Amino acid sequence: MILTVTLNTALDLTYGVPELVPHASHRVSDMAERPGGKGLNVARVLSALGQATVVTGFAGGSTGAVLRELLAQLPPRDTTGTDTRAAAATVTPAATTATATPVPAPAPAPITDALVTIAGNTRRTIAVVDRTTGDTTQLNEPGPLVTADEWAALLGRYAELLTEADAVALCGSLPPGIHVGAYAELVRLARSSGVPVLLDTSGEPLRRGIAARPDLIKPNAEELAQLTGSREPLRATRDARRRGAHGVIASLGPDGMLAVTPDGVWRASPPARVLGNPTGAGDSAVAGLLSGLVEGLSWPDRLRRAVALSTATVLSPTAGDFDRAAYEELLPGVDVEEHTAAAGDAVG
Amino acid sequence: MILTVTLNTALDLTYGVPELVPHASHRVSDMAERPGGKGLNVARVLSALGQATVVTGFAGGSTGAVLRELLAQLPPRDTTGTDTRAAAATVTPAATTATATPVPAPAPAPITDALVTIAGNTRRTIAVVDRTTGDTTQLNEPGPLVTADEWAALLGRYAELLTEADAVALCGSLPPGIHVGAYAELVRLARSSGVPVLLDTSGEPLRRGIAARPDLIKPNAEELAQLTGSREPLRATRDARRRGAHGVIASLGPDGMLAVTPDGVWRASPPARVLGNPTGAGDSAVAGLLSGLVEGLSWPDRLRRAVALSTATVLSPTAGDFDRAAYEELLPGVDVEEHTAAAGDAVG
Repeated sequence: MILTVTLNTALDLTYGVPELVPHASHRVSDMAERPGGKGLNVARVLSALGQATVVTGFAGGSTGAVLRELLAQLPPRDTTGTDTRAAAATVTPAATTATATPVPAPAPAPITDALVTIAGNTRRTIAVVDRTTGDTTQLNEPGPLVTADEWAALLGRYAELLTEADAVALCGSLPPGIHVGAYAELVRLARSSGVPVLLDTSGEPLRRGIAARPDLIKPNAEELAQLTGSREPLRATRDARRRGAHGVIASLGPDGMLAVTPDGVWRASPPARVLGNPTGAGDSAVAGLLSGLVEGLSWPDRLRRAVALSTATVLSPTAGDFDRAAYEELLPGVDVEEHTAAAGDAVG
Repeated sequence: MILTVTLNTALDLTYGVPELVPHASHRVSDMAERPGGKGLNVARVLSALGQATVVTGFAGGSTGAVLRELLAQLPPRDTTGTDTRAAAATVTPAATTATATPVPAPAPAPITDALVTIAGNTRRTIAVVDRTTGDTTQLNEPGPLVTADEWAALLGRYAELLTEADAVALCGSLPPGIHVGAYAELVRLARSSGVPVLLDTSGEPLRRGIAARPDLIKPNAEELAQLTGSREPLRATRDARRRGAHGVIASLGPDGMLAVTPDGVWRASPPARVLGNPTGAGDSAVAGLLSGLVEGLSWPDRLRRAVALSTATVLSPTAGDFDRAAYEELLPGVDVEEHTAAAGDAVG
């Protein structure tokens, strides 16, 4: 299974309003509520890819209870009554043998709730979508104060889960009370357990986490610039690698991804530029990279999957979901170009 | 006791943000959560005035559970360990005997939760306060769908509570599923039980409710104009009375109130114009009018209390609370002027 860690989970609310007018009163015309935080979003995409996933991190209070209730309803039940786990097991390996690219539509795999219960209230995030322009205004609560005992409980749970994990993703911001070196600690534990670890965070927690030598980081251009001071993608990505990450997959928005890894340097680009909501595109990319890793795909195939998933997420009408048909259509068209040996040698 | 009915209760969230920028992402810098909906706000002020209050209406789901938890913590506990109920009983009558005006600071009286549990989720409202300008942007969820059985349960609960009520306030919007004549039904039940009833709503529910002849309505200028088509306060207020309300107290914002009643016509004005947040000022006025009614105060004293409470609510740093010191200071300065007999005769 793949383990995702979300220390600052969130109950994600989406409010549609006819038009957002500051200082006015709005009646919410449509709303949606779902379990959120980056690691939970990654788990949702992994499940859709047929990868059994366990989620840990913190959840508490009344919002935490709602989050877990909604999480228990994932993946959506198969209305035909088929056992989705069995279906996934039957379909996936056969199809993988037949083609080099991953299976387009396996049945969803289970997501297991291994969240640690805390006393504080899980935060809410609110995305206010202006239904006239389609623009989103985001309001994020800071998150609950996590105590030292709760952090210790998380460490215990994490160590236990690592024994069965094929890979782990550490995702998102730190809630109040968690020390800035927390991700470094989790990276070291994964590495000493021999579990490949991907770190997807920003700022000081990323800087500290990288020093603990994670297998992969997946910064976007803004996070890379903040980390390295450079806005030149290749230079910044190589610099990030020098700081300790074994592989750096820089997500460059509509330009695709740049991968600087121990095995080479690749640039992967979507077949066309698309318009849509980029929310969750990075989480889909993480799911693509990790599922490709545990399935033993080559770097080019992992990148193809990550770019296609991420582009299909931008195209989806629901923020954070990916459009399955778009994903299948995009996948063969993703262009992956290997950098010359000279360029590769210059790395790290 | 005074009964307040809130069919569309709400969990009121206040989010402070450094500055609200549409289409940007915001970290909420400070937040507050409290039980809301007009009737619950009225109950909070009644409690602060020393009036024991029972609240009914609907609450359900996880947000309903949080609302009831927060409601159970009201009124705030006396930190000195004194029994606030006993203190209220001792202080209030003595002081009432001594002066014609109401007691300035009785101990808070209890608020009893008699809400009907429903399957749907109580709505949230979110007030986003721009901490740079102080301006508020409001987002209101529509509210849960209430079933016919749940409405029947409310009618039963209401009829039971009326047997012990000295007055009842029917407050706010109707949730989905509740028929537009619901308030008219509740007004008729109160009148046939001989309990004075105040209706504070707007639009079609107000129009229908008035036809059932409530003792009082408390529209603001906008609600009056919507009801009568007139923006001239005296004309609109008289028109509203002709439609069936025995007494109409029009709240005219900073201009105070205009009361057209069977006993005469009065205009009450605050001693000075004040700047602040008008949220909840109308609910405080309702609490002032009803507490004055059950205490047997004269119309001028009821209006004085309503105007002083409402002005002290605008002045309070917390939206919907009233500033106790400001209330006490404002009370003797509220100017109440009776209209001439000729003007009074023209009514109804």
